[in-house]
Amino acid sequence: MNRTVDVASLVADAGAGSARAVARLVSLVEDAHPALREVMTVIAPDAGRARLVGITGAPGVGKSTTTSALVAALRRQDLRVAVLAVDPSSPFSGGALLGDRIRMQEHATDPGVFIRSMATRGHLGGLSQAAPQAARVLSAAGYDVVLIETVGVGQSEVEVAGLADTTMVLLAPGMGDGVQAAKAGILEIGDIFVVNKADRDGAEVTVRELRHMISLGERREPGQWRPPVLTTVATTGQGMDDVVAALADHHAWALANGELDRRRVRRAASEIEAISVAEIRRRFGAVPDGAGLAELAGLVAHGRLDPFTAADRLLAAAAS
Amino acid sequence: MNRTVDVASLVADAGAGSARAVARLVSLVEDAHPALREVMTVIAPDAGRARLVGITGAPGVGKSTTTSALVAALRRQDLRVAVLAVDPSSPFSGGALLGDRIRMQEHATDPGVFIRSMATRGHLGGLSQAAPQAARVLSAAGYDVVLIETVGVGQSEVEVAGLADTTMVLLAPGMGDGVQAAKAGILEIGDIFVVNKADRDGAEVTVRELRHMISLGERREPGQWRPPVLTTVATTGQGMDDVVAALADHHAWALANGELDRRRVRRAASEIEAISVAEIRRRFGAVPDGAGLAELAGLVAHGRLDPFTAADRLLAAAAS
Repeated sequence: MNRTVDVASLVADAGAGSARAVARLVSLVEDAHPALREVMTVIAPDAGRARLVGITGAPGVGKSTTTSALVAALRRQDLRVAVLAVDPSSPFSGGALLGDRIRMQEHATDPGVFIRSMATRGHLGGLSQAAPQAARVLSAAGYDVVLIETVGVGQSEVEVAGLADTTMVLLAPGMGDGVQAAKAGILEIGDIFVVNKADRDGAEVTVRELRHMISLGERREPGQWRPPVLTTVATTGQGMDDVVAALADHHAWALANGELDRRRVRRAASEIEAISVAEIRRRFGAVPDGAGLAELAGLVAHGRLDPFTAADRLLAAAAS
Repeated sequence: MNRTVDVASLVADAGAGSARAVARLVSLVEDAHPALREVMTVIAPDAGRARLVGITGAPGVGKSTTTSALVAALRRQDLRVAVLAVDPSSPFSGGALLGDRIRMQEHATDPGVFIRSMATRGHLGGLSQAAPQAARVLSAAGYDVVLIETVGVGQSEVEVAGLADTTMVLLAPGMGDGVQAAKAGILEIGDIFVVNKADRDGAEVTVRELRHMISLGERREPGQWRPPVLTTVATTGQGMDDVVAALADHHAWALANGELDRRRVRRAASEIEAISVAEIRRRFGAVPDGAGLAELAGLVAHGRLDPFTAADRLLAAAAS
């Protein structure tokens, strides 16, 4: 047992439905708390049960409104849902319009829904370690679906694809037409495309262009997944049941095809690597004075050592 | 001696003024060639002689034109100048207007000028390792000033500040007013601010706002550097001698104040850390089957191991 955290009780309470215990566990992830290691050991067998769905898209496409409507649709199927929002400009972390916040609050009193904004400490790298760990915790706590919402800004879109079993890319008419989508590299990462605000002018054009772009990049082998392009009006809930069905379809396909397992193994590899690199950096900082990074940096800066030899020495000191 | 590269001759030739040898050495950096280690050992004593000047700014401020004009001004003082361009959208790597390329070509036949676009292999992280190593090589080859030009896009601006002894931030009227500059975080990183295209409308407003924003953030202790705001018209060369003088002033201040040494030690520390992490990642990949990342990832993905224990095992295997 960890000195300050009773991990066994906390995990048991979270599994029994205590939102407070779940929130506490996610906080341990955010804080990179020493007890996290024990948590991960305890929950390992149940840490991969949930379906992880990534939701990404440029600001303004209606990401949080769609997420909220998707939560409602999943709840109608009696699925327990957790939402992780992992961008500083996201509604969940305070950078949002009041309307968006109110929209998510319809789920605030539902014990089958957990909503959390993850603090990534201003560093993109943080996401790659914190979000998968939080998803593990939520999975072990019995949530059936974990929605990971990130704002689409280049690198983070590709990153969210790595985090999820299924990646849903959101667009809106006039903003995310086919060519822009291709430029942004989102065609490669989307398993499901959703054109939101489909009641607006230009929705059909966006859908058509998107389908065209997708067909150009498509592999025509039998058994391959063909990313559907769906339309929604998230503010009214229109189209959301189709999105839920498409998510289930993709999950079933990925499971049968082996793609789900491949993605999860790849994700676990990134996670292990990220933890290993973080641990190595920690050890660099813990090397005693006289053999540590500060001293080596001084020698290199003053021309008395080359950086490769300095790195060798640092690694040797960190290993011992 | 390395099997395929005669490092001693190459370094000697580079030092004797062979542009071909210098280019070859920079290629070794880009390729992360095995001979690089020997190069770095040989050149260590001379690797820190050059003044490293970072030049950053949003697209459209006239970065390459200003760089070219700055090269001309530095050449008038008989300084040997190297230019490293480290962004894919930069003129030097092919994403530019023809006019910009022609402008830099005025230096193409000058043996006192070396111009090179660095390939960072599409990954921002590459810059933090490749650019400092290239700067070492150029320093040892006898260039007095190394200009490191990067396009200003959020993170990379902060990164260029870490790479340089002096960071010059470029703005243009109407694009980079004070508030925008503050938002972009460039006020903190600039040692010298240059408002280019100063013959255009709004230049005075931009200068005034910038000075105001800088004064707000200023520490008023004696002996602190006060970042000047200069104006240039790079296309005509107007104001470039003042920029050269400001660069020399900042260098003299940083040398006397101890800031130069602090920056160089900090830079060396990042460099050593980056090389160490790259080496550790390489070792992860070299762990034999059965104890390697692939196997561990499978165990974690299937709930039979937690990622922290997997990381411990990976680090132990990589160390042995």
